[in-house]
Parts: sequence; C-alpha cells; structure tokens
Amino acid sequence: MEKVYIFDSTLRDGAQAEGISYSVQDKLKIVESLDELGIDYIEAGNPSSNVKDLEFFKEVNQLKLNHSKIVAFGSTRRCNILPEEDSNLQSLLSANTEVIAIFGKSWDFHVTEILKTTLEENLSMISSSIKFLVKNGKKVFFDAEHFFDGYKHNPVYALKTIQTAEEAGASSVVLCDTNGGCFPDEIATIVSEVRKKTKIEIGIHTHNDTGQAVASTIMAVMNGVRQIQGTIIGIGERCGNANLSTTIANLELKKGYQCLPNGNIQLLKSICVRIAEISNLALDKTMPYVGDSAFAHKAGMHIDGVLKSSSSFEHVDPELIGNSRRFLLSEVAGRGTILRKLKKIKPDITKDDPLVLDMVNKVKELEYQGYQFEGADACFELLALKAMGLYQSFFKLESFKVIGDTTNKSCLSTSTAMIKISVDGKTEITAAEGKGPVNALDKALRKALEVFYPEVKDIRLVDYKVRILNTNSGTSATTRVLISSSDGKNIWNTVGVSEDIIEASWIALVDSIEYKLNKTKRQGD
Amino acid sequence: MEKVYIFDSTLRDGAQAEGISYSVQDKLKIVESLDELGIDYIEAGNPSSNVKDLEFFKEVNQLKLNHSKIVAFGSTRRCNILPEEDSNLQSLLSANTEVIAIFGKSWDFHVTEILKTTLEENLSMISSSIKFLVKNGKKVFFDAEHFFDGYKHNPVYALKTIQTAEEAGASSVVLCDTNGGCFPDEIATIVSEVRKKTKIEIGIHTHNDTGQAVASTIMAVMNGVRQIQGTIIGIGERCGNANLSTTIANLELKKGYQCLPNGNIQLLKSICVRIAEISNLALDKTMPYVGDSAFAHKAGMHIDGVLKSSSSFEHVDPELIGNSRRFLLSEVAGRGTILRKLKKIKPDITKDDPLVLDMVNKVKELEYQGYQFEGADACFELLALKAMGLYQSFFKLESFKVIGDTTNKSCLSTSTAMIKISVDGKTEITAAEGKGPVNALDKALRKALEVFYPEVKDIRLVDYKVRILNTNSGTSATTRVLISSSDGKNIWNTVGVSEDIIEASWIALVDSIEYKLNKTKRQGD
Repeated sequence: MEKVYIFDSTLRDGAQAEGISYSVQDKLKIVESLDELGIDYIEAGNPSSNVKDLEFFKEVNQLKLNHSKIVAFGSTRRCNILPEEDSNLQSLLSANTEVIAIFGKSWDFHVTEILKTTLEENLSMISSSIKFLVKNGKKVFFDAEHFFDGYKHNPVYALKTIQTAEEAGASSVVLCDTNGGCFPDEIATIVSEVRKKTKIEIGIHTHNDTGQAVASTIMAVMNGVRQIQGTIIGIGERCGNANLSTTIANLELKKGYQCLPNGNIQLLKSICVRIAEISNLALDKTMPYVGDSAFAHKAGMHIDGVLKSSSSFEHVDPELIGNSRRFLLSEVAGRGTILRKLKKIKPDITKDDPLVLDMVNKVKELEYQGYQFEGADACFELLALKAMGLYQSFFKLESFKVIGDTTNKSCLSTSTAMIKISVDGKTEITAAEGKGPVNALDKALRKALEVFYPEVKDIRLVDYKVRILNTNSGTSATTRVLISSSDGKNIWNTVGVSEDIIEASWIALVDSIEYKLNKTKRQGD
Repeated sequence: MEKVYIFDSTLRDGAQAEGISYSVQDKLKIVESLDELGIDYIEAGNPSSNVKDLEFFKEVNQLKLNHSKIVAFGSTRRCNILPEEDSNLQSLLSANTEVIAIFGKSWDFHVTEILKTTLEENLSMISSSIKFLVKNGKKVFFDAEHFFDGYKHNPVYALKTIQTAEEAGASSVVLCDTNGGCFPDEIATIVSEVRKKTKIEIGIHTHNDTGQAVASTIMAVMNGVRQIQGTIIGIGERCGNANLSTTIANLELKKGYQCLPNGNIQLLKSICVRIAEISNLALDKTMPYVGDSAFAHKAGMHIDGVLKSSSSFEHVDPELIGNSRRFLLSEVAGRGTILRKLKKIKPDITKDDPLVLDMVNKVKELEYQGYQFEGADACFELLALKAMGLYQSFFKLESFKVIGDTTNKSCLSTSTAMIKISVDGKTEITAAEGKGPVNALDKALRKALEVFYPEVKDIRLVDYKVRILNTNSGTSATTRVLISSSDGKNIWNTVGVSEDIIEASWIALVDSIEYKLNKTKRQGD
C-alpha cells in the first residue's frame, strides 16, 4: 500500500476555531494522543506567538514520542531584511523541532495588496527563509498560502513560488486552499498541473467553507499528493479544516492507501473522543466513521436489512475503526430491537418470552406519553429490571417542596428545595438552595442520599436538556427532560416526561441515581 | 441560468436522525419555512406509517403554499400482489399530493437477499407500482435505492430498474447512495454512464457517511443531474443527508445554477436557523455559508487581511446568504442590521445617531449573556423603545412566590404561584394553580393584570420553547426561554435568559405583555 503522510494541525489551525482555547497541558495531552494514533507530523503552533506556546515547546521536547514529529509553524521573513535579522525565524529555530513549516504568499494579489511588496521580493523572501532554515539543519515544509486562488489568477507566478521553494531546499510544498472556496474538481486539475511542473513531494491543506474539504483532499491524493494536512476532528478557523479522521478512514478503508501504522485505525474512534473531550467539545454524533450515530439505525426497514446482512445498510464494518452498531428505539422500531437490548441483561431470553411483548407495549405506551428511549438507555434498563423483578428501589420519597420567590424583575432570589426521604425506615430531611428550582431539588436530593449511599457523591450531571413537546399549549406544555450523568468512568442517560418541568426533571434525576445504585449492587452480587 | 430542482427530505430522512422527533405542528412549521425559501419539493413522510403522519397530511393540505409541492413517500408494492391490493400504495393516494416518491430496489443482492424475490418480480413491482400511481393522476419520482452499489455489482440490472421506471411513466429517477459509501469520482462516472442510457430527468440522493455528500451531489449536477435530494441543514439517518443549504449556496454562488427563486438565497441563513430551532437543535456554528462561525475571523492576520480586502480571507460575501462577518476578538458588527430594524420604529434615524451605537452595544452585551434576537423581534423593539424614551411600563412587580410540592414520585401536586403587582399605586394580590411553576406564575400574572387591563385577556401563549445553553453545567445551566404570543391577529416573540428557568420564563412573559400594551397605547395615541 502506498503511504500518505498525515499532518495534524489541531494545535495550530484547530486552536483558531471559535470557542477553542488550549492550555499547555491540553496541548501535551493532544500530542500524546496523536502520537498514539500514529500521526506523522503534529503542527504545534508558533513559538514566538505567545508565552504559552514558548512554554509548550520546552515541555513537548521532554515527551517520548513513538511516531510523531513535532512541527513548529511560522512565516517567511519580513520584507527587505535578511533572514538572520528576522526575530520570528530565529524563534522558530529555538523551538528545537526537526521540522519547520513556514507559509508564504503564492497569490500575486496578496503580495501586492496585503503584504504591499513586489512579486520579486516575495520570491526572495521564500528562497532566503527556506535556505536559512535548511542551513540550520531543519527539514522545511513550505505552505503555499492561497495557492489555488493564486493559481486561478496568475498560474505562472503561483507556480514560481513553489518552484522557488523547491530550489531553495524545501522537503515538500503544501498547496493551501486558505479561503476554503475551491471545489474538488478544480483541486484535481490544478494538482495534476503542479505535478507536471515539479519533482518535490506535494501536500494539500483544505478548509471546509464549501463543505468539501474531505473530498478535495481525496481528489488531491488521487492526483499525486502524498502529504495531507487537516485536523483530527475537523476543527479550525470558520467552518473548520479537512477532517483527518474521515479522510484517513476513507483513504485506508476505501482507496487502499496507508495513512497510519498497521492496525492503528482501530484506535480512530477512541482517540477522536479523547481529543474532543480535551477540547471541551462533545464529539459530533454524526461525524463520519467515528460519531455515535455513524452506525445507528432507526428506520425499521433499515434495522431489518442490517440484521439480514450488515452490508445492506452499512458501507463499512464499524468495528474497523473501533465504533459499533446501534439500534435506536423509536416509534418505527420493534420487537427485534427490544429483544437485543434485553439480551444484554438476560442473555438467554428468547423472542417468545412474554417479557418481550410486555416491554414492547410498555415502551410504546411511554413513547406515546412523550418518552424517548433512543437517548436514554439507562431508563430502558431500569424498566427491564422492573419487569424481570430484578429492580431494587434504594430510597422512598416522603415529600418535597420547592419554593422560588422574588421581589422584583431584575433580582430573583435563589430557589430553595426541602426534601424528606426514607431508607429502610430511617428518614432524612434536608434542604438546599440552587440556581432555579431543578438545581435546588437536585442538590437537596443528593445531600439526603449521601447520608445512606456515599457513592452518590461520585455522580455528576454532565448534560441537561429540555424539550417542550406540544408547544401550542404554552406554559403548560408537556416537557421532556434528558439528563446525562457520569461517575468518572461511564456515562448514562435518563429521561423524564411531565407537564411540570420539575416533575420531569425529578423523574430523570431519580432514574439516574437508581440506575447507578442498581448497577453497583448487581456488580457486587 | 440552468435550473436544478431542490427536493428536501427533512420531514422524512431528517426525522430518521438520532434525537429528532417532530410533532405535527413542527412539521407544518417546517413546510411553511421551506416554502418561504422556495424549495421545489418537500418530502413529507409516509401516510401509512403512523397516526401522526396521517394527521399531518390532512393538515398540510389546508396550508396555502406559494412554491413548494408536498411529496408523499412510500415503496413499490409488495411481492406477488397487484398494486390495487397493496395497502401502502392505496394510502399513498389518500395523502392527496400531486407528487409521490416511491423507492424500489436496484441492487440485485438486495432483491434476492433482503426482499427474497426474483430479479424479474422486482422489475414488475417497479413497473406496475408506477403505472398504478400514474394512472391515478400522480407525478411519480422513482428512488432507485442503493443504485450506485447496485451498479458497481451488476450495472446491467441496475440500469434495467431505472429504465423500467422510465418506461412505466416516472417523471424522474433518483439515483440513491443509500449507504453513503460512494465517492464523488465514482458518482461522476456512474451518473454520466446513466445519462447515456436514459432520457428521463435524473436526481441524486446522497448520504454523508464518507463526509462527501455535498461534493458527490455537486459532481452529479456537473454530470447532468437536475434534481437534488437532501435536507436543508443536513440532518438524516446515521451521518446525515447531503446538506441542501451548503449545496444550494455552492451551486448558485459558485457554479451558476439556479436552485431557488430569484433573490431567495438571502433567506438561507434565517430559514436554516428557524428549522434548527423547530428541530430543537442549535444550528452547527461551523456549517458552511450559514453557520455563525462561517465568516468569523479569529487569527489577527486574517482579520487584518479581511479589513484590507474581504476577498483575501473570505470565499464569498456573507451578506449574499443573509449571514454576516464577525471578528471574534475585535468589535465591529451588526450596525447595518440594527439601523434597518430601528428605522421600523423611527423612520428618520440615521446611521450616525448615537442611539445606533448604543443599541449595537446593548444587543452585543445581551447576546453575550445568551439572548438571541433573531427569533425575538418584540424584545428588540422594547429595547429600542426604552433607548428612545418611548417605553412605558404598565405595572410593577411587588413580589411573587412559586411553590411546588409533592408527597411521592408518581403524583406531584399542582404548583401554586402567588403574585403581588401594582399599577399607579394600586396593588393587586392574587394566586393561581398550574401545571408546573411557570404555568402557575403565568396564570397568576394574567389574573392580576386583567383587573387593570382587560385586553390582557386576548393574549394567548401559542409557543413555549426551552433551550439549555451551556449543557455541561448540569441543572444549573443557563436557560433560554422563547415565547410566542398571539392576540388573535398578530403573533410576536419574546425571549428570556437566566440560570433559573422560572426567571427566564418570567422575563419573556413580562416582555410579551408589555409589548402588547405598549403597542396598543402607541396605536391609540
């Protein structure tokens, strides 16, 4: 299999995405994760851009990486000075990386209108900067900024910039679609023109402003590019960069190229989830190959087809990238899905067991009320445990009262909740304040339960979603609350439905805690 | 410009996405939004699949649409029966739509292994089903399921299925990449082969399992396809369908095709935001063209470049699709939009009026807190009236108290609210019970206000939506409440934001009533 080199820019272009801000520790964890996956090059920012990046380069040199090479990123020298006089080039050397990527202009319009210099001086900036870095023992990648737009306006000049980089000793030139406006067919044509006029290794760097960054990258590889730049989960300025997880899976599983060390593609999903977590993002459920929904089936006919033959509605085997198939519970799904879910609790159950039909009816009835189990597996499991007689209730609610009051519009007092519960005849009454009635009730319930079950302390709410179902009823509309909880190891989801948001939240909260306590008990048995 | 027909499947394929569940009212609102945008065909589900869909088809026929045609969706008849005997085909007719889309098998493997019938019978199913619908006066689109996979395995048979549809009288055949595994180059090749062997209008239906649904659709159009299927914000089974907003913008702004009625592309962003809201999703910030980050610049060098010349780092002008440029660190935004809105209240205002800058700053500050004025024009108007000194407050809140209590999980008592307000020194104290704390408070407030302002009786809440903004904070997350109110003639929208859902609802409720009372007074002046 032919090798395509993978260049990840999460720490540089990814950090330009709205809402992303990495600490030095975050960056080091991302480097370790990308190294574990087997990414060839990790672009790690500009050592002269801020103190955090300078500190990062010191720390990253202490890490023992198995595969990845760290790349410092900067630009060609400023106009009309010697490279030795350019403080940015000097600081690039101080990063102590084997490889340096520098970007330079290849669109004539940018040279004269943004840089405000001559076309000749720009070529000299490219040439002398690369020569300077090579002389200092560095391997240099030249990022030809705006290459495709430049080529469309002035192909001769655009080509001259990369030929200049080639002659100056760059190891590869990377054709950048900086504005993200090019189409895959244009990329294909221009890349193949460039191949005819150069001998150097060519790279590609695309953005997703037309939703085609992955397709453009694939087209470029099919036309001779052997280094692809992007970010592992696609984050980047504006609409993001080429998503490397998608691109790698496409190239390895569909086009027969090698991107990662043998076997490592199985790590793809887990590394993407981890990097999303470090970035404080939930990994997009719909992300190709690695998202939670990528192999989730909801339509009854699709579920039926997949059960007969997985290739009937799946383009690849989810296990290949460490993902898995899921069947969603919904109005369209039926007995087969429920049987498969029940088998996880009671492996010997058969489709004729009356329990299966009971559960189908129960789920239908609850879905009619507004419950939705596709995002709330924990509630389904509790329902099943109840039907099997395996469910244990760990506490009894005696009463609660929530009070919110205020004296004027701009300053609402904090809500208060009082709660009384009992466990094996012992009662506990307590109260808590919170931001809003649900938060107050949540805090009071945990406070009361911790007296009996210290493990409740480990449960943390990680997500809270509210959906109004029949919006036309105004403020008395039915409300569905979805809660995600975590104990640091696992995440589980519960759901509650009521016309009263407090009651809906209460149902989901109680199920969340009962699920954890039931699970702990069953595992202890 | 050559016309490409747009076929939206949000209500059918989109509803298969994980987490999506539309009420009949949601579906009707989506139909109206897509019609406003000028989508040619709206696929609206299967009238025989459940009661909700049946109700929907009754209601949708009452809507007056300006542009869109509603399409009912089903499959070819079952094996070995006559079309007249097929209850699904019969129920498709009962939907009373001008157009019907039916899918059928075009991959031989699916015919023999999933349908378990013969290749001949499958052709007969296609032919007789289409003839039956055509005979009943319907325009029929034939969705050739798994066409590309089928073509790769058995091109002769795959072609035969669509030729059969053509001969039976279908108006177009739609080539479906049902599993989403095909690449744009394969799509291009196969589409151009099909063009040579058929005369009928060809459509394309792609899924995003390799992250290339948009690119594949564009490639198909460049090879002669003239109907594109997808969903306006890309939602759909697994990784989603071809994103129509991206595809339309690509085709209209970059490739010179006409997809929407003249000028309507300017509505693209606002319609996408609205449909995301109805779907209870936040529109993906990074969505090409329409996302909030699509023209957001963070890197200093990019901001500098854009200020010198917008085309230096933007592939299209954001205004074309109703989006706008944002600078994430510096402050230059929205003045034109705000001026346009202020002119509605004070037609002689100029852009240099200090009020304009005041409002820009006020809106920015509130948006930072989580407010969103896109869906809440009434709140913006109240803000503007306040800034102009034209606002009148019609009552003063003295205090309120909301109490919810319960004695066990399965039966929560009705919530109670007490409220004390004053109008011109006269106070009114009252109480109300409701379904949940917000409903109780809403009822108590109206009851107290009606004593002073009988017109409050006419105000009715028609929609109430809750969105959790920073989900990671669990039950103390910031909550945004959107309320739609009606007086029987007009509908207006208000918004409230707080960590406390009761406070957020209160803010939106009060603005809703104050808006109505201010409007009545100004019109009476």
